[in-house]
Amino acid sequence: MDIQELVRSLQGKNSSKIVLLIADGLGGLPIEPGGPTELEAAKTPNLDRLAKMGVLGSMIPIKPGITPGSGPGHLGLFGYDPLKYVIGRGVLEATGIGFEIGPRDVAIRCNFATLNPDGTIEDRRAGRIPTKESAPLAIKLRQVRIPGVEILVEPVEEHRFAVIFRGEGLAGNVGDTDPQKTGVPPLEPVATEPGSRRTAEIAREFLAQAAKILAGQPKANGLTMRGFSVKPALPSYEEVYGLKAAAIAAYPMYKGLARLVGMEIVGQPKSLDEEIDVLEKAWGDYDFFFVHFKYTDSRGEDGNFAEKVKMIEKFDSIVPRVEALKPTVLVVTGDHSTPAALASHSWHPVPVLLWAATCRPDACQTFGETEAIRGGLGHFEAVYLMPLALAHAGRLGKFGA
Amino acid sequence: MDIQELVRSLQGKNSSKIVLLIADGLGGLPIEPGGPTELEAAKTPNLDRLAKMGVLGSMIPIKPGITPGSGPGHLGLFGYDPLKYVIGRGVLEATGIGFEIGPRDVAIRCNFATLNPDGTIEDRRAGRIPTKESAPLAIKLRQVRIPGVEILVEPVEEHRFAVIFRGEGLAGNVGDTDPQKTGVPPLEPVATEPGSRRTAEIAREFLAQAAKILAGQPKANGLTMRGFSVKPALPSYEEVYGLKAAAIAAYPMYKGLARLVGMEIVGQPKSLDEEIDVLEKAWGDYDFFFVHFKYTDSRGEDGNFAEKVKMIEKFDSIVPRVEALKPTVLVVTGDHSTPAALASHSWHPVPVLLWAATCRPDACQTFGETEAIRGGLGHFEAVYLMPLALAHAGRLGKFGA
Repeated sequence: MDIQELVRSLQGKNSSKIVLLIADGLGGLPIEPGGPTELEAAKTPNLDRLAKMGVLGSMIPIKPGITPGSGPGHLGLFGYDPLKYVIGRGVLEATGIGFEIGPRDVAIRCNFATLNPDGTIEDRRAGRIPTKESAPLAIKLRQVRIPGVEILVEPVEEHRFAVIFRGEGLAGNVGDTDPQKTGVPPLEPVATEPGSRRTAEIAREFLAQAAKILAGQPKANGLTMRGFSVKPALPSYEEVYGLKAAAIAAYPMYKGLARLVGMEIVGQPKSLDEEIDVLEKAWGDYDFFFVHFKYTDSRGEDGNFAEKVKMIEKFDSIVPRVEALKPTVLVVTGDHSTPAALASHSWHPVPVLLWAATCRPDACQTFGETEAIRGGLGHFEAVYLMPLALAHAGRLGKFGA
Repeated sequence: MDIQELVRSLQGKNSSKIVLLIADGLGGLPIEPGGPTELEAAKTPNLDRLAKMGVLGSMIPIKPGITPGSGPGHLGLFGYDPLKYVIGRGVLEATGIGFEIGPRDVAIRCNFATLNPDGTIEDRRAGRIPTKESAPLAIKLRQVRIPGVEILVEPVEEHRFAVIFRGEGLAGNVGDTDPQKTGVPPLEPVATEPGSRRTAEIAREFLAQAAKILAGQPKANGLTMRGFSVKPALPSYEEVYGLKAAAIAAYPMYKGLARLVGMEIVGQPKSLDEEIDVLEKAWGDYDFFFVHFKYTDSRGEDGNFAEKVKMIEKFDSIVPRVEALKPTVLVVTGDHSTPAALASHSWHPVPVLLWAATCRPDACQTFGETEAIRGGLGHFEAVYLMPLALAHAGRLGKFGA
């Protein structure tokens, strides 16, 4: 029995409300010896006040040393073991552009490629063709017709696009056609188990028709398909936690990930302030609210320490509006670290702040990575965050008599 | 998927260099109430300076409460789950004397024993016969001849020696012949699975011939065989981590353990200073260096607090030479604790120091057990040390998109 199964067996309902306030890529690193991290450098009077009253911890997103992508990072936060539940690359690509994957869908990440006259690959990314050229080509591929299956083609960015086959009896166990090198032709799509044979046949037919449509294109005269995958069988928040859950996010990827675990996507906020507007309006309708702020990660990815600090200060500024709603449990953290010093996601732990009337306050006085090391929640893996939130909300019964 | 499989799927190569500097049995205990441990009592200016710049943690060698032997202790350090990968006692005995176990070998720990005239065991250890008497007897056993199999006999110490059967179709699933009590005859070697039947037959023939050779000896007129085992199927450092790894150690046991995970044994150093000489010379040729210092453990085993302190100070003194090589990641720790107060290995956690440009410094100011408790790496099991080292070296890709 893993922790989620245990929680599932113990959960009960009450009128509590839980808010999970996520600053994406929150954790950071100093940019000078002995200096503060972004969070430590930021003026965060509201989070510091909560840190004094609440309890902190140092959260390991996946396992020590492992840097999460957005998919596994959020699955962990949501309480789903990211090593057990894997979101396929095709599904993640489609999710990232806001495409809602259905139960009859197989999603595929595709690359436009440049083929030589002999059919071998000259460039696996079609010279990173700009989106304004590639998007119309992707849309042109919607002309493909295959009996018994609906074909959906969605532009993504530059050479990337997504294809979704929708129909009965499809499966995702088909090998990539990208040979991962140039000078050889793309691979044939091959089923790796009998149940995916029809999907592989459809892919071959798609590629044949697409070849005709793309013929004569200077750069994007071919394509490769990768990450064939179906919607993962994730039990819902309602099933696992007994929570009616709302997701409030501006970016399609995070809405999509929340939808995969059965959260309802609420509102169409374009900014953090608008997200809190949505939260206030939806307050009466849900038990659980996942609120996602993207720009802490974005500025970290940019390698811009000062701007990430500003984004954290922005994030801090909306905290009183959340507090005013009187949540039973308020959890503030990130899905992973994105230190400006590395300009990328990283493996470093993420500080967690949990406030609830039932929490046991520790000695921590401010919200920051160094302070969180001595927090009362200790060092723990992300999959334990939801159990902790539920417990503090009085939603978990006793295990055993 | 366990952590090692995950790491294996994410590892990539770069030009980084990782040093794992091991003071065997590093962790200790105070010898008076409120007093320091050996490490805390030692003057370690170099390790303290690194502790300020780096990040500490408190490492659990196997699981809380479990005292490791050298085999499991090092397997854990090397990132191999010691509960999954078991090194047989025979292989460990042979490894400890520097015998290189091959793929066609079955290794067996043997004891000389004193038998009564009726064949029952009078003394399971032949009166702890001194090595100078037992070693020639072990060598005499090399006279045993069995068709189709090569017999190797190696003296160890006092009543102990090792036998290796080398040939095709051998296996290690044979029961011990030591009945673990006196007044009864030794057991027959019995195969516990069909594939080991031939090995059991060879063992019976070995025992029959050995009985004749030992007949008339006053103490060592018999022998028992234990821990039949073959070389464990450990994936190599190159396979798992993509690392070309060097082991620099003075003691055969640690060279042998490193060899089992595919490290190359470099040099023939006799002292810690010579080990660092070897490290400097080999610096250009490997990605990873395991440097093993034995005497912290030895003085702990002796129960000599003051001498263990001196050994730790010796260990500290070579740190600047290692730093001068500019490793990307420098990890300093032990394989387990050997408190002088207990004069034995123990289950207590071992302090870890990790320095890298990518580490997130914590508030720790010195290198010691108490300080390590509040380290940024938290409390973690040894199998996570290699993933952390690889991450800080930039050798692990992102998990999921």
